[in-house]
Amino acid sequence: MPSSSPAQRAAAHPARYPFDAPDNQLLATWQEAGHSRWAFTHMEEVTAHARITRSALPADPTVRLDAIAQSIPDLQRRLEETYTDSLVVLRGNDILAEYYHGGSDADQPHLLMSVSKSLCALVAGALEMEGLLDVSLPVSHYVPELAPSAYGDASVRQVLDMLVAVDYDEIYLDPASEVQRHDRSSGWRPRLDGDPRSTGDFLATLRGSGKHGEKFQYCSAGTDVLAWVIERASSLRYAQALGRFLWQKLGADHDAMITVDDRGFGFANGGISCTARDLAKVGRLMLGGGMAAGGRVVEESWVAEVFAGGLPEHMAGEGFAQLFPRGSYARQWWCTGNERGIISGIGIHGQNLWIDPSQDLVIVKLSSWPEPDTAQWHEVQTNLLLELSEATAQLG
Amino acid sequence: MPSSSPAQRAAAHPARYPFDAPDNQLLATWQEAGHSRWAFTHMEEVTAHARITRSALPADPTVRLDAIAQSIPDLQRRLEETYTDSLVVLRGNDILAEYYHGGSDADQPHLLMSVSKSLCALVAGALEMEGLLDVSLPVSHYVPELAPSAYGDASVRQVLDMLVAVDYDEIYLDPASEVQRHDRSSGWRPRLDGDPRSTGDFLATLRGSGKHGEKFQYCSAGTDVLAWVIERASSLRYAQALGRFLWQKLGADHDAMITVDDRGFGFANGGISCTARDLAKVGRLMLGGGMAAGGRVVEESWVAEVFAGGLPEHMAGEGFAQLFPRGSYARQWWCTGNERGIISGIGIHGQNLWIDPSQDLVIVKLSSWPEPDTAQWHEVQTNLLLELSEATAQLG
Repeated sequence: MPSSSPAQRAAAHPARYPFDAPDNQLLATWQEAGHSRWAFTHMEEVTAHARITRSALPADPTVRLDAIAQSIPDLQRRLEETYTDSLVVLRGNDILAEYYHGGSDADQPHLLMSVSKSLCALVAGALEMEGLLDVSLPVSHYVPELAPSAYGDASVRQVLDMLVAVDYDEIYLDPASEVQRHDRSSGWRPRLDGDPRSTGDFLATLRGSGKHGEKFQYCSAGTDVLAWVIERASSLRYAQALGRFLWQKLGADHDAMITVDDRGFGFANGGISCTARDLAKVGRLMLGGGMAAGGRVVEESWVAEVFAGGLPEHMAGEGFAQLFPRGSYARQWWCTGNERGIISGIGIHGQNLWIDPSQDLVIVKLSSWPEPDTAQWHEVQTNLLLELSEATAQLG
Repeated sequence: MPSSSPAQRAAAHPARYPFDAPDNQLLATWQEAGHSRWAFTHMEEVTAHARITRSALPADPTVRLDAIAQSIPDLQRRLEETYTDSLVVLRGNDILAEYYHGGSDADQPHLLMSVSKSLCALVAGALEMEGLLDVSLPVSHYVPELAPSAYGDASVRQVLDMLVAVDYDEIYLDPASEVQRHDRSSGWRPRLDGDPRSTGDFLATLRGSGKHGEKFQYCSAGTDVLAWVIERASSLRYAQALGRFLWQKLGADHDAMITVDDRGFGFANGGISCTARDLAKVGRLMLGGGMAAGGRVVEESWVAEVFAGGLPEHMAGEGFAQLFPRGSYARQWWCTGNERGIISGIGIHGQNLWIDPSQDLVIVKLSSWPEPDTAQWHEVQTNLLLELSEATAQLG
């Protein structure tokens, strides 16, 4: 743990992306004097890469399901049918079961999609603990650029809990939906004429007419707003803040990574890739009341409030409420409200960071469902995860 | 070492980029069924990323120059003045000196620029050893698409030795030069109207009127031709071949990476990033006669032919011949022909993998000179490296 003050630590690391150039100039200027020193050691920010791996993928994918397959005999088939790329079942610090689809392995990062959101909230919690962030303040206090947007007068806490009224359709397969324009602004899809040039520009366009704090509205834009708040509060780039306040305390075995837009801004709502085992460590941190191998990440009270959940009455009409009648959403986590008190980070195409406090259990399931987000897929996956929790409980 | 045959090993791994889609469709289609399973575990191929590091940069950059600074008292100043980002001086397996500029460290990858070429040739040598590549055959034998190009009737060996006559100006700062069109085709600079859509398309446009085998002509396109030959001979993508035949035998501490174009083809002539220490292991492999920690990479005779050098008479008018009158070029390495028998991989902006067989010495110097490639910079850097060799010799 550094002994310097948060402000000193923040000042010691450059917050700003070293390119103040206008949009998409990075590719034009990275080889030039003044830019090259940074660029030559950050080529993964300049353009796409292929990995040259120091170890080969195992000839046979890892399948260690014996302990649990006694209770769920068709487990491997069900993992295959739900397009599982990685599964880690971790009780305490023991890996009870592990599975990787061919082409994946324990050292291979996997895209987290919206499980990334839960990690973002942990960084916000870390900044709160450090005295750098007051979640009761409006977003515009930290990011004046968002003052005219729907987020300007929302509190950071309302953004954390997705209680912001914003005109944003999150219909993944509809090109007219805001979520696709968001993708196109952020480097996740090819840009169309008239699209904003960056995530920040896109966020600033968002408007809303409703009242904040009254109803849960799942909206990926909110998490990117949080990341922008985090950058301003920490004086770090978002990827650096993730490193400093989370990854470097986690005891992670591998670096993680996050997609960036043309201005180097991380896609906080869905862009993190990491290994399943490292993600399981985030689950351990939650079960440890905010304490990780390398120190405290967030206050114990912060974690307790996640496990306590949000208000189920905010969730009327949500698919999650169909699966879990007492379900709610708190600080970028889905809270089942079930008898085990399970919470989960959830991402489209089948990503779960499933945390069962009743038996100190973490299950990571990373998948590539052929569709992003259907009620049927969620039901199949949720039932499998619930059965895995039950099966683990039966192991004693 | 795998016990299967090379053909079996090649067949076991998909050679093809999983996207046969037309140009630049990867960003449009990676989230779709059929593509997502690969993409979710290879997001660094889809778009640019920022690293989320598991360990913080050291507060004070590593400077361990004492052993050598006795002979070169102003060493640190001269490293700073030559924009050194990383320096590793390795004799046998002992690191005698090490230096990282603030913002870099031993775990940080650095772009190799054309030192990447020397690594490409090692993979070609590895395929020759495996019986997968005959360097006496013409390029068109392996890559029919290049038959109409200047490279079609050149032998692979002529390409390795840069003895191909091709109309290609390698003037880095001239936008009309072929090297910039090459960059623009390969994702290293913003594309202009009319530019080829990929490295392969660009290579196929190259023509030449001279006779091969008569004169050294430094040309970055040749190395990308070699990489294409390697893909066809190995049935692997180039990044995979680098992994299988070099990186996985090297005892590397970290994965390396290589920039890819819109079709996923690696920029073999300059796009590899790795740590200075891992690059030094490539030097050890050369000094070990082709043997690395994880097995033999190339035949001993192959390495011997590099140290023997090419023909100095091919080098008339080259800047390198001004520095080293017996200088030559062989298999993508610069051969000084000096009394120590030093060879070097060399890249623009100050990259060197310097190998001094007279004292089992490897020096890696990775830099960010403000200009790509001037006679003055090369002279200053070469003199420093020669002095480092001398200073090490004096240590006894």
